[in-house]
Amino acid sequence: MLNQDTNILIVGLGLVGGSYAVALSAKGYTVRALSLERRPIDYALARGWIVDGGTEPEQFVGQADIIICALYPGVFVDWVEKYRHLFKSGALLTDVTGVKSAVVCKVQDMLPPDVEFIAAHPMAGRERSGVQYADAGVFAGANYIVVPTEKNTGLAIETCKYLGEVLGFSRISELTPKKHDEMIAFLSQLTHCIAVALMNAGDDDSLVKYTGDSFRDLTRIAKINDEMWSELFLINKEPLLKEMEKFRKAFDALEASIRSGDREEMRRQMRVSTERRGWFDK
Amino acid sequence: MLNQDTNILIVGLGLVGGSYAVALSAKGYTVRALSLERRPIDYALARGWIVDGGTEPEQFVGQADIIICALYPGVFVDWVEKYRHLFKSGALLTDVTGVKSAVVCKVQDMLPPDVEFIAAHPMAGRERSGVQYADAGVFAGANYIVVPTEKNTGLAIETCKYLGEVLGFSRISELTPKKHDEMIAFLSQLTHCIAVALMNAGDDDSLVKYTGDSFRDLTRIAKINDEMWSELFLINKEPLLKEMEKFRKAFDALEASIRSGDREEMRRQMRVSTERRGWFDK
Repeated sequence: MLNQDTNILIVGLGLVGGSYAVALSAKGYTVRALSLERRPIDYALARGWIVDGGTEPEQFVGQADIIICALYPGVFVDWVEKYRHLFKSGALLTDVTGVKSAVVCKVQDMLPPDVEFIAAHPMAGRERSGVQYADAGVFAGANYIVVPTEKNTGLAIETCKYLGEVLGFSRISELTPKKHDEMIAFLSQLTHCIAVALMNAGDDDSLVKYTGDSFRDLTRIAKINDEMWSELFLINKEPLLKEMEKFRKAFDALEASIRSGDREEMRRQMRVSTERRGWFDK
Repeated sequence: MLNQDTNILIVGLGLVGGSYAVALSAKGYTVRALSLERRPIDYALARGWIVDGGTEPEQFVGQADIIICALYPGVFVDWVEKYRHLFKSGALLTDVTGVKSAVVCKVQDMLPPDVEFIAAHPMAGRERSGVQYADAGVFAGANYIVVPTEKNTGLAIETCKYLGEVLGFSRISELTPKKHDEMIAFLSQLTHCIAVALMNAGDDDSLVKYTGDSFRDLTRIAKINDEMWSELFLINKEPLLKEMEKFRKAFDALEASIRSGDREEMRRQMRVSTERRGWFDK
C-alpha cells in the first residue's frame, strides 16, 4: 500500500511532521502537507521536502492515500472529527501521538467504515519545536511502536510497520494501547517529571559553574514544551501517577538507608540499579 | 612550584589517578606512582605514563615535591595518617576526593607543619574504574574546584589551580569546604540518588525495547560504584538529606498538580524548569 505512487499527506508540519517529510521525500516518496499557517509549508516546499501543501484541508485530504497526523493529541482528535467527511474511501490514517488509550478508540469510532486508523508512536524528538529543526537523523537508533486494536487489519499493521522502516527507525514493535501507555508513563513521562522536579528543586544559578555531565544529562529534558507535555500528562494521568508512586517508594527506600547509615542496604540498592542499567546499554 | 623538575607522586592508580598520570606525562612532567598492587604500575609504566612506581611508600614518598592522593576519602585519611612521617619538608599534598568538610581539616591537622595540604575536586569521571580506562580527555570541558581553608598559603592555592590547568580542565574555581559539599550534594549526589531510585522503580527488562534517549540519559549514572558512592553519601549525609528533601518537595508539587488536573500550575512549573535549564546550556 505504501509505494512511490502513494499520495502521502502530512497534517501538521512541526518538528515531527517536518522530519517525516524530510525522511520520506529523501526516499523518493511524494509528500504533501497541511498546516495551520503558510510559513512552514513554504519552508518545506523551498527545501523539496514536499511537492505541494497548503492550509486548506478541502484541497488535499480527498486525494490522500495515507494521512499522517502529526498533531498534539487533543488537536488530532478534533481535526479528525472536523474533516473525516473529506477522507477518500480506502484511505489509511496514522498518527504520532505519545498517548494511545484515550485517542485510538475514539478516532477509530468516529471514522467512516472505509477509512482505517492505525496508531503509531515514533519515539524520537528534540527539545525544540518547529519545522526549522526537522531532521530525519533523529529516527536512527530510535523506536517506532505500532499500536493496533482488534479493529485493525493485518494490511494496515504491516503498512504502518513498513512506514517506520522507510522513516529509518532502528526498532519497530507492536504494543496494545494499555501496555503502550504504561510503558510511556514509566520510560518517558516519569523521566520528564523527575527532570522538571530536579530543576525546580534548586534556584541557585551560580551552580552552573560547577555542573558536571551527570546533572546536565539528567536535566536535559527539563527544557520542556509545557503545552504538549501538560496535555500528555493529563491524558495519561492514572498510569503516570502509578509510576510516580513507584519511583517515590524507591527514592524513599534509598533515603531511609542513608538516614539510618545502613551502608550495606545502600550498596545492595546500588548493585541492583547497576545490574538493571546494564540491560539498557546500547 | 610545579615545573618540569617537580617530582610528582600519584598515590592510587585507578581511573582518576591514571588519568592524571596520562595528562601530566603528556605535558612532559615527571610522574611516579604508588599503588597497592603491582599490576596498575606495570600497566602505566608500559605506556610511559609514569617513569617509576611501586607498592612501597617508603621508596617514593620521601622524594616527592607534590603528592596527589587519588584514593577514596576514608582510605585517603588513613593513608596520610600512616605515612605522614615520610613526607619531605616543603612537600605539597593534594587530593581528588568528592567530599571535603569531613576530610580537609582532618588531614590538615595531622600533617607536620612543614607539609601543606590543599584540597581539590576534579569533577570528571567515568562509570568505570581501573587504570585501564584512564583517559585525560575526561578533563576537557570539566570543572576543577580548589577547596582551600584559612590554613592554606596563596602559593599552594595558585599551584593547585595551575595543576588543574595543566591537567586540561576547562574551568577552575574556588569554594569553601562547606559550600563545596552543599554544591556536590545537589549537583552530583542527589542526581545519583535519583538515577538509582528510577532504575530500581521498575523491574521489567522488556522495556529495553522501547527505551528512548531520555531514559538512557537519566539513568546513565545508575551504573554506580557502590563502594565509593555509599561512602561519599554517608560522609556528606546532612547536606545530601537536605537536597533530597528539596527534590521531594518539588516532585510532590508536580504530582499534586497532575492529580488535581491543574494544568495551569503544571505549565507554570514546566516553564520555570525550562528557564532554569537554559542557564545550564553549554
